[in-house]
Amino acid sequence: MRIVVLGGDGFLGWPTALHLSAAGHEVAIADSGIRRAYDAELGTTSLVPIRGFAERAQIWEAVSGRHLHTFEGDLCDPGFVARVVGGWAPDTVVHFAEQRSAPYSMIDRAHAVHTQVNNVVGTLNVLYAIADAGRPVHLVKLGTMGEYGTPDIDIEEGWLDVTHNGRTDRVLYPKRPGSFYHLSKVHDSHNVEFACRIWGLAATDLNQGVVYGAVTDETARDQRLATRFDYDQVFGTVLNRMVVQAVLEEPLTVYGSGGQVRGMLDIRDTVACVRLAAEHPAQAGEYRVFNQFTEQWGVRDLAERVARLAPVEIKIDELDNPRVEAASHYYRAAHTKLLDLGLVPHLLGDETILGLLRLVGRHRERIDRSVIHPTVDWRSTRNAIRLDGPTADLPGGDLRHVGPRPR
Amino acid sequence: MRIVVLGGDGFLGWPTALHLSAAGHEVAIADSGIRRAYDAELGTTSLVPIRGFAERAQIWEAVSGRHLHTFEGDLCDPGFVARVVGGWAPDTVVHFAEQRSAPYSMIDRAHAVHTQVNNVVGTLNVLYAIADAGRPVHLVKLGTMGEYGTPDIDIEEGWLDVTHNGRTDRVLYPKRPGSFYHLSKVHDSHNVEFACRIWGLAATDLNQGVVYGAVTDETARDQRLATRFDYDQVFGTVLNRMVVQAVLEEPLTVYGSGGQVRGMLDIRDTVACVRLAAEHPAQAGEYRVFNQFTEQWGVRDLAERVARLAPVEIKIDELDNPRVEAASHYYRAAHTKLLDLGLVPHLLGDETILGLLRLVGRHRERIDRSVIHPTVDWRSTRNAIRLDGPTADLPGGDLRHVGPRPR
Repeated sequence: MRIVVLGGDGFLGWPTALHLSAAGHEVAIADSGIRRAYDAELGTTSLVPIRGFAERAQIWEAVSGRHLHTFEGDLCDPGFVARVVGGWAPDTVVHFAEQRSAPYSMIDRAHAVHTQVNNVVGTLNVLYAIADAGRPVHLVKLGTMGEYGTPDIDIEEGWLDVTHNGRTDRVLYPKRPGSFYHLSKVHDSHNVEFACRIWGLAATDLNQGVVYGAVTDETARDQRLATRFDYDQVFGTVLNRMVVQAVLEEPLTVYGSGGQVRGMLDIRDTVACVRLAAEHPAQAGEYRVFNQFTEQWGVRDLAERVARLAPVEIKIDELDNPRVEAASHYYRAAHTKLLDLGLVPHLLGDETILGLLRLVGRHRERIDRSVIHPTVDWRSTRNAIRLDGPTADLPGGDLRHVGPRPR
Repeated sequence: MRIVVLGGDGFLGWPTALHLSAAGHEVAIADSGIRRAYDAELGTTSLVPIRGFAERAQIWEAVSGRHLHTFEGDLCDPGFVARVVGGWAPDTVVHFAEQRSAPYSMIDRAHAVHTQVNNVVGTLNVLYAIADAGRPVHLVKLGTMGEYGTPDIDIEEGWLDVTHNGRTDRVLYPKRPGSFYHLSKVHDSHNVEFACRIWGLAATDLNQGVVYGAVTDETARDQRLATRFDYDQVFGTVLNRMVVQAVLEEPLTVYGSGGQVRGMLDIRDTVACVRLAAEHPAQAGEYRVFNQFTEQWGVRDLAERVARLAPVEIKIDELDNPRVEAASHYYRAAHTKLLDLGLVPHLLGDETILGLLRLVGRHRERIDRSVIHPTVDWRSTRNAIRLDGPTADLPGGDLRHVGPRPR
């Protein structure tokens, strides 16, 4: 298959592209570089050093003998999307290319607007480009388990059979997301479902859980192929961030009592899930949703797991929760469709956590302690976060200064 | 109460502002003039002549003795929103200020993007301005019955009690809208519900049906206070458009067999509903939804009703449906909450249709036959609609040319 990975320079887009390439597909990566621009804005950097966009594509070519096409541009630019989707003629478009941090979207108004515009407009442009492609193109779109929130009923995979007043219909599963970022993914889901309905597009929406881990079979082949590792309050994810705290021999922090339960998965399963979805495409007109996680974990349980494996004794601190979310709640989410396609999960074993402790330990000198503590408060509309660069310099979709044009 | 009507120059925003002013409230209207810019773009104009934004506010003042504040600006400009919401300090923000045409949003990619960005960003800016106001401000937001689509179960007012696998939760009613415009309102609904949840905002979402009629008690006081009357394929609504066809002695047109059923209401009920919602505000933290319509009508039944009252014999033509929607379907939607607040509906009587026939007859010379026939096809991504002006000149939120900024 010809597969383009949008957002192919990101934490997951990059290893997914390598995995698809290693599996024998002809792969292109497209990226605007915006994730690196967020680093410049926030004064952060990947814990694990990463090479430049084009450079590491060449390294992959040298290591694997397989070519990786590169497109540098922004999905908010419809001409760029047309060149990639119309011009390069992929069979499958894997779409990771969104602002993916909930705290980033909650910094202030400008970051909320940037997140929703960047994500919604990029996806609309992709939908139009696929509709205009003149041949079947399967969209594999990254959503998030956070779209569902934490309802008091079982979470199904995207759709729900509802019986009400004696009648039954199959409806999109009701959403109650927890940040302007998660909302942007809900908006996308509705837009994508509509495009399937009116234009006969084929789409798979992967509602992914929280990813942990740092290394895949492909990135392990050369250290210059490493993907980024984020541990800061804005882009870091929970397990990876706790490992950094453990290496620093500092208390592991949970929000509130840590009773939040989330679906989680190993980065090696992310790349496998995307491949399985691509290799088993949706039908024309079908909008299908897979819940992409392998295990449910309570946040405190995770912290205790990391603490047990840490080289020194470490305690767990409860922070005032900067987010507005249930401290403890019912949580039971279906996740069988990817297993049915053949996913063999890497469940969270001690070896994975120990491997992360070793990896972070090797880069210990690069840790910036000042970016870990959460300062983005959901209840505030203007969070005082250190910004090293101006938001307005970000490519694509920043609307702080959009107003009436002179007529 | 101090009430600002955003979109106060539009078809419904203008008569709502007058109605609130006549009821004794201190009213301001805010508008960017974008609806008049759409006219320039599409080469259309209101059938009933309308006065300029500031001019008719002054006429109202002369006629009623009540002042109407005016703010000219765009909700995509956060500074403007802060001046209106923070500066003028309303108790209630009535938000009509969105691109409101489904066909407009389906013309092509640029119009879809414009619609979603304009509506979503404008509403986000309003939410942030209210959160920053430092005092309670009730948001009364215009949604649409089209957010629900036509599910095979009863439609409730915004929320639904779902029992699933033996457990029950109250969830946002699942949405399945039928255009990128309707989707923009779904996106808004999710964003507004979230703002209520995290910031304690009080919001009423009015999911309005299809409005017919042209005159309210207040606009009737002076012909210079008339609100706009649209009959073109893009901004015209079904009953008003059929009346224009009847006056032209041309066949009334329905899409397919005309079996579509929609909630509908008289323009006099629109203004009353908004007043009732404003005068009975939501609680802090409450996101409530009222389904704002008074009767369900099948489109063919409406056409037969108009045909029966037309001065000459007129037939009903079935057009290929340019939209992707069910030709006939179950439809039963709750609409009791506004009745509970005291709404006394103007049901669709012969007098209303005869009054519309007389009104349109008086302006018969102004009818442009070329703008009635539907040419915006949901299945096409590039509709050949006559555009007299460029989309890019529209104020606020057009993203055709947004791409990476030079760095």
